[in-house]
Amino acid sequence: VNIPVQLGPRSYRIVVEVGALDRVGALLADLDVGRRAALISDPAVTRLYGERVLASLSGAGFSVTPVQVPEGEGAKTLAVAEASWDALLTAGLDRSSTVLALGGGAVGDVAGFVAATYMRGINFVQIPTTVLAQVDASIGGKTAIDHPKAKNVVGAFHQPRLVVSDPAIVRTLPDREFRSGLAEMVKHGVVLDASYFAELERDAPALCVRDLPALESAIAGSCRLKAGVVERDEREAELRAALNYGHTIGHALEAATSFGRWTHGEAVALGMTAEARLAGRLGVATNDTVSRQERLLIALGLPVRATTVNVEGVLQAMGHDKKARDGRVPFVLSPALGHFQIVRDVKQEDVRAVLETLVESGSHG
Amino acid sequence: VNIPVQLGPRSYRIVVEVGALDRVGALLADLDVGRRAALISDPAVTRLYGERVLASLSGAGFSVTPVQVPEGEGAKTLAVAEASWDALLTAGLDRSSTVLALGGGAVGDVAGFVAATYMRGINFVQIPTTVLAQVDASIGGKTAIDHPKAKNVVGAFHQPRLVVSDPAIVRTLPDREFRSGLAEMVKHGVVLDASYFAELERDAPALCVRDLPALESAIAGSCRLKAGVVERDEREAELRAALNYGHTIGHALEAATSFGRWTHGEAVALGMTAEARLAGRLGVATNDTVSRQERLLIALGLPVRATTVNVEGVLQAMGHDKKARDGRVPFVLSPALGHFQIVRDVKQEDVRAVLETLVESGSHG
Repeated sequence: VNIPVQLGPRSYRIVVEVGALDRVGALLADLDVGRRAALISDPAVTRLYGERVLASLSGAGFSVTPVQVPEGEGAKTLAVAEASWDALLTAGLDRSSTVLALGGGAVGDVAGFVAATYMRGINFVQIPTTVLAQVDASIGGKTAIDHPKAKNVVGAFHQPRLVVSDPAIVRTLPDREFRSGLAEMVKHGVVLDASYFAELERDAPALCVRDLPALESAIAGSCRLKAGVVERDEREAELRAALNYGHTIGHALEAATSFGRWTHGEAVALGMTAEARLAGRLGVATNDTVSRQERLLIALGLPVRATTVNVEGVLQAMGHDKKARDGRVPFVLSPALGHFQIVRDVKQEDVRAVLETLVESGSHG
Repeated sequence: VNIPVQLGPRSYRIVVEVGALDRVGALLADLDVGRRAALISDPAVTRLYGERVLASLSGAGFSVTPVQVPEGEGAKTLAVAEASWDALLTAGLDRSSTVLALGGGAVGDVAGFVAATYMRGINFVQIPTTVLAQVDASIGGKTAIDHPKAKNVVGAFHQPRLVVSDPAIVRTLPDREFRSGLAEMVKHGVVLDASYFAELERDAPALCVRDLPALESAIAGSCRLKAGVVERDEREAELRAALNYGHTIGHALEAATSFGRWTHGEAVALGMTAEARLAGRLGVATNDTVSRQERLLIALGLPVRATTVNVEGVLQAMGHDKKARDGRVPFVLSPALGHFQIVRDVKQEDVRAVLETLVESGSHG
């Protein structure tokens, strides 16, 4: 499947295809880029897929320097970016060269930031290896590293020239990481497309057992939805903000637990649950809209409750949200499946109330 | 004088006006930005102009955090960028906030890089205080910091929302720094506009004594030419590359002397002299085109010869030029005043020959 992302001079395509990993070299050779490249990845992903991608690139005539970064969020530091710039310079990469990111969201974020800032921006290719990265993080040009005080504080918008997603490779992910990625698919359905949401409801059992046709269809569908948003709103004004659904509370839940308790996808599932209930509480959404979201999350093995929630800590973390403007945070709410609206005047007592509903009966945190 | 830079959603204006320094607050208030801001400057410039700019911003209702960076190229380090991100985060700057750069090219470069990368890019305002920064560096969105191995390796394109240039303040610059800025004016005339070049020839004596009407006219004229180039070629493809005239050799002269011997403008003057002679040698330009450039540079007090030149070192430094593609460096040459062409197949022996002509008789380096 080829999904175009139309952004004028920054247009590119997303290739979603079983076996695409072996076509990276040929796909890159179709673009007008120099022959030098750097492949940024982490040790675990390199062990699994590094040789296949390097072989594909060499076969297409590219001279590739491998750059290793730590696994997980630990890759998103200034020190890692600095070491990567060094490696690119030492390898003689110039403005015509390409940085390829092979890995999950964190590898894509830091590699994208390095590509965005090396010589004021060079070619960048995403080869996402997790569900989360394939359906969300690899599309749209958001790149970032973390600051000791907050995530993603330092970054840039830098569109890739190409995204290569091989659905076969996410079948080997650990269970918790696999399921976490499905949360972003649900998000796309809720705020953008009711029929995609219904497809996920229908295919939930197949997705849970990682059925390949169901996976390919769900991944491609999510990529199409995200690409449509990015096309209409490249730099995150109103429309792209819709993709923050579940993330305002989800991100605050992560921050209040020092990013150690839930995966990002789990936190987003809890965030969507809370934000759906917020929409219900404010009279924005019907009960049916709220409960279908919870049922789908449960069917996909994602959490909709927690044993404890540090409510005040979460409220405080929301105050540091990047979407805040002069201190106030807007909420994305879904009045009906496939639709969203931005609500700027949500009272803290309403947020507090829905956060408290996340806690399982008898154990308030 | 108001000079518009038309870049669609990234359009902005350049205000060139005596006394503009006191209108920064009012001009910023005209834009739709949040009330928080950071004013990045160095100690010397802060001493001269910090209070006026802060008073103007406070008077317009802005809450401003001053951020000090070292003077000169020493500001363009990753450590300075990191300290600035910290300061912005501590001050609670969000996506609606503004970074203002008050200073020369180095302050603008690092402040612009900080603005480009803080929360993936926030509002940025240039208040250039040198001739070089007013006529060149502040316009066009190039931002960067240096790498220990090479200048401007890490950076981004990030257009300012506003440029405020007060011609009165460059009258207090040290003589060498003032004259150095005039080199970029000459460059604009040579490659873009023969009548602007003729204006500089006519006004050279007035410019040397810093006559205010002559200065305002020359600065505004240069801004208009640069804005025209940026409008037609925002991200440095062929046209914008014309502004590298004099810089391919000029930058290599700087690099080969560890940036310690000539100011940037002096190196560019020598670079233009050498590249004009290269055009003559290759039969691209007439003798008259070559000699008018040298005469104007001399009239403005800029160097057209050197006591020694490390020719092999300069040739080697050119090999590391960012404009290189798979190792080859293109040259911008001027076949006639107001025109340019890009020549990609210049032989090293021709470059060596013109470098040798820069050396005063009897002292080859």
